[in-house]
Amino acid sequence: MGIVLGANQYGKAENRVVRIVRDTERHDIRDLNVSTSLRGDFAAAHVDGELSAVLPTDTQKNTAFAYAKAHGVDSPEDYAIALGRRLLEATPAASGARVGVEEYAWDRIEVDGRGHDHAFVRRGGEVRTATVDVTAQGTVVEAGLTGLVVLRSTGSEFKGFLHDRYTTLAEAEDRILATSLTASWRYTDAESTGDWNGSWRAVRSALLTSFATTYSRALQETLYVMGREALEAHAEIAEISFAAPNRHHHLVDLAPFGLDNPGEVFIAADRPYGLIEATVTREAEGDE
Amino acid sequence: MGIVLGANQYGKAENRVVRIVRDTERHDIRDLNVSTSLRGDFAAAHVDGELSAVLPTDTQKNTAFAYAKAHGVDSPEDYAIALGRRLLEATPAASGARVGVEEYAWDRIEVDGRGHDHAFVRRGGEVRTATVDVTAQGTVVEAGLTGLVVLRSTGSEFKGFLHDRYTTLAEAEDRILATSLTASWRYTDAESTGDWNGSWRAVRSALLTSFATTYSRALQETLYVMGREALEAHAEIAEISFAAPNRHHHLVDLAPFGLDNPGEVFIAADRPYGLIEATVTREAEGDE
Amino acid sequence: MGIVLGANQYGKAENRVVRIVRDTERHDIRDLNVSTSLRGDFAAAHVDGELSAVLPTDTQKNTAFAYAKAHGVDSPEDYAIALGRRLLEATPAASGARVGVEEYAWDRIEVDGRGHDHAFVRRGGEVRTATVDVTAQGTVVEAGLTGLVVLRSTGSEFKGFLHDRYTTLAEAEDRILATSLTASWRYTDAESTGDWNGSWRAVRSALLTSFATTYSRALQETLYVMGREALEAHAEIAEISFAAPNRHHHLVDLAPFGLDNPGEVFIAADRPYGLIEATVTREAEGDE
Amino acid sequence: MGIVLGANQYGKAENRVVRIVRDTERHDIRDLNVSTSLRGDFAAAHVDGELSAVLPTDTQKNTAFAYAKAHGVDSPEDYAIALGRRLLEATPAASGARVGVEEYAWDRIEVDGRGHDHAFVRRGGEVRTATVDVTAQGTVVEAGLTGLVVLRSTGSEFKGFLHDRYTTLAEAEDRILATSLTASWRYTDAESTGDWNGSWRAVRSALLTSFATTYSRALQETLYVMGREALEAHAEIAEISFAAPNRHHHLVDLAPFGLDNPGEVFIAADRPYGLIEATVTREAEGDE
Repeated sequence: MGIVLGANQYGKAENRVVRIVRDTERHDIRDLNVSTSLRGDFAAAHVDGELSAVLPTDTQKNTAFAYAKAHGVDSPEDYAIALGRRLLEATPAASGARVGVEEYAWDRIEVDGRGHDHAFVRRGGEVRTATVDVTAQGTVVEAGLTGLVVLRSTGSEFKGFLHDRYTTLAEAEDRILATSLTASWRYTDAESTGDWNGSWRAVRSALLTSFATTYSRALQETLYVMGREALEAHAEIAEISFAAPNRHHHLVDLAPFGLDNPGEVFIAADRPYGLIEATVTREAEGDE
Repeated sequence: MGIVLGANQYGKAENRVVRIVRDTERHDIRDLNVSTSLRGDFAAAHVDGELSAVLPTDTQKNTAFAYAKAHGVDSPEDYAIALGRRLLEATPAASGARVGVEEYAWDRIEVDGRGHDHAFVRRGGEVRTATVDVTAQGTVVEAGLTGLVVLRSTGSEFKGFLHDRYTTLAEAEDRILATSLTASWRYTDAESTGDWNGSWRAVRSALLTSFATTYSRALQETLYVMGREALEAHAEIAEISFAAPNRHHHLVDLAPFGLDNPGEVFIAADRPYGLIEATVTREAEGDE
Repeated sequence: MGIVLGANQYGKAENRVVRIVRDTERHDIRDLNVSTSLRGDFAAAHVDGELSAVLPTDTQKNTAFAYAKAHGVDSPEDYAIALGRRLLEATPAASGARVGVEEYAWDRIEVDGRGHDHAFVRRGGEVRTATVDVTAQGTVVEAGLTGLVVLRSTGSEFKGFLHDRYTTLAEAEDRILATSLTASWRYTDAESTGDWNGSWRAVRSALLTSFATTYSRALQETLYVMGREALEAHAEIAEISFAAPNRHHHLVDLAPFGLDNPGEVFIAADRPYGLIEATVTREAEGDE
Repeated sequence: MGIVLGANQYGKAENRVVRIVRDTERHDIRDLNVSTSLRGDFAAAHVDGELSAVLPTDTQKNTAFAYAKAHGVDSPEDYAIALGRRLLEATPAASGARVGVEEYAWDRIEVDGRGHDHAFVRRGGEVRTATVDVTAQGTVVEAGLTGLVVLRSTGSEFKGFLHDRYTTLAEAEDRILATSLTASWRYTDAESTGDWNGSWRAVRSALLTSFATTYSRALQETLYVMGREALEAHAEIAEISFAAPNRHHHLVDLAPFGLDNPGEVFIAADRPYGLIEATVTREAEGDE
């Protein structure tokens, strides 16, 4: 029974590409963290150390920076599509190229009520994400976000759950619900929207609105509603996936100090945390 | 030559106090990370393991949570003053109590153009800080921020510097200037402002405006101008200190690929980074 | 076209279980980070907020701690198998349970040439990992490690690679090769070894020996050799996977200072880094 | 009342200097993170943006790398002394130079019972530190370590402490004592030991032995004994300082599950943590 190479890929991770658009005095900035990888028939490199089919990760890095100039960065998705297609084309042995982009948002610094031309403050918090996968069969585009921390201070319960001999949790009528959301949605195809930035903003907004306005009987239900409402409003997306750590806020017992605590003082716990993962999709979809 | 105990302090670090204000249906949230410490005559604990003078760090924690209810959190400064005074009073052997607070900001989630009553999204990015030191002699209040990431895409040079045999740096006529600012300002006294929140917002805004509008010949100069303008505009503060890592953005050489790069594509470097630290103060101040 | 729930799972992540074995005066310590999850038919919770099938994540946490006592922790694998089987049994709606364990190693503090009975120092560095997946069909056990940082100061080249118009990398005759290795190997079945701890140590040792003794023409080749030699020596494992960031060490140009630098002074770079991922497997294996 | 520049310093932080010693086939490696700073009369740079007195941080970086070759790295202390003196000498406006070094330890990979010539595995865990401050008056050398995680599974109590109205902590007869130790000791002068590496190892070993063999009535007492015993055994050091987070391990209540828990199953808590800081010094010392 021989030993063989299985699945493999290689690339350059975390290229910190910063693109300033300075065509006018009013500059723009796109601040990206770009990771690329190639997969395909690279057995010779692994088994024999023979590298003639291997486009170096250093070249992938160079391409990522060059494309920030040559192609530009209208959106992370648009840039990643161009970059992925180039890497696949440049590497005959590759069957697929994958480009992942994180984007960090910047706001203009406000001076006298107006955003400054070339001074910026990083918005912080969540990160916009895009993942593009290119093969001879086509281009799959996923967009999303990570680190979007949201919290409801009421309108969340957790009741009627299964009990076994290790269950001690009391039912919660009114708890804090908080999570640091990761969401990723797949577009139906690479031409499903003419406006990657507009679509991203609209889906993000839909997720926030759903979270805010939906009474929660479980984080599972909240995620499902968010996904369903996003899919209902956006025909251009085929599917949406969530990973949502349940950031527990424990009510502090202040009774020993003669104080009541009707949902006012909490300790935010780090670990352990609940972790809820779910995909919401369209019924007739046969893909993936 | 005997061996003795020198400076010492002890406390509870990183109490994650979350305070929901729910007096009306429109909730508010204060999300704090609170650290306390006591110093004074605790030699018996160190030298003899005798703890009768030691208020446990667990009690300090309890007090931090109880005061979030009993005193409330109108501002980090106000809460820290009350907490520090309580800890000093509760511990006869202590000569000083110190309370450090980090505050994480939350915004209301916008639904139909209006902020929601009880659904929030964490703003992310910078953290508001306050440090209060209480002794029999009085209360010293410092406020500040950390992690405020700012960038100028032009209007920054670095020229005319000292050369020695290890100098290879070229003069820069037009570079990116970026930093993740930590700033801390000391109030003239604990009653110097009637509005800790308003003062904090105003100083922060002054710092951002100075950064945006000042041509920079060095990060040192930029910090000094920021400090000077903050002090000029705010009589209630006595002194301001900065720590500012110079987050280098290196222009990428695209010439090998037949592309010019007039200040458009940069690689953001992690390490090493410049680190500039400076205090700006008032001339006649005799304190500290 | 309706909207439906797709793949989903939920659990409790990062339970920090510390187990002291104190049957004799010579204590032992197992220091674990345990994450559990359940998957199966939980549509009612997502779609209707109806939780009667849901074993709370809080109960999963309780079970993780109770099993550290009731079952004990002879090895991460053994403990995870017992815990996973319990969680599946306790949850009729679940089709699968997954338990991930990270273990942090401790050494005895040496006093007068002998390890102390109850004083320990954490070894640091790499983390031992185990992942157990339990279904009605059986139990799949993977073991591994992460954060094993290794470096060769010579005996590594990178030559003969593919060039395109974005290639600027020079061929390297003699470079530093360094990586922070993540490896995970799947056992042929849950009874393939009677000694999880011994098997783990032996595979780890085989990986280190292969890394040390193999001339490297590419990190790809090094990983493949490591995998092949591990599989050859260990019939109890079916497959091994690697993720290996290529931690670049760039030779510093000291010529401007009148110094040569024949492979002596390097700058260790953080980002970007190469990322090589590969699985080495047995030919006739039809699974996965 | 004018506004003036106060204390200030500037430098280059976190230069990742890796030095391979390859004089023979048996290589050695020193893996450093080097930070430098200069202080003195740099008011012109801050107030007027006039940089003729400023040795660029880029030059400081170049010097750090050049000195790893020109001077070598026999020890972090020795290297930092040379580098600090050079930076001070190169910068007439500077009154002081400060060099901080972190060193990451590597072991040889063992092959057939013998350490390999040029293959290494990073030891992980604690980091060795050195801080050297150079002025016209002399050179102050501090050495130390950070991230040394130690734990006693018995032989630790906490009793007889002060109570107030917020005290709920029960007395502990037998608890886990664990900390991630930071220690830093100052040498009496820059020639107080002829063997920086030997002295560092001996002090570290003394600290571990004291921790292991001392019954603990409080972490305060444990730190004091560690400091006292280190000073008693090492005339070359004048003073030692500790920062020790008390990493709480809470006994888990297993009674609801019909299990007793006599000091066997703990949950390791992240936050909050106790934080104990203390300096142990010699009585007649008039310095600092």
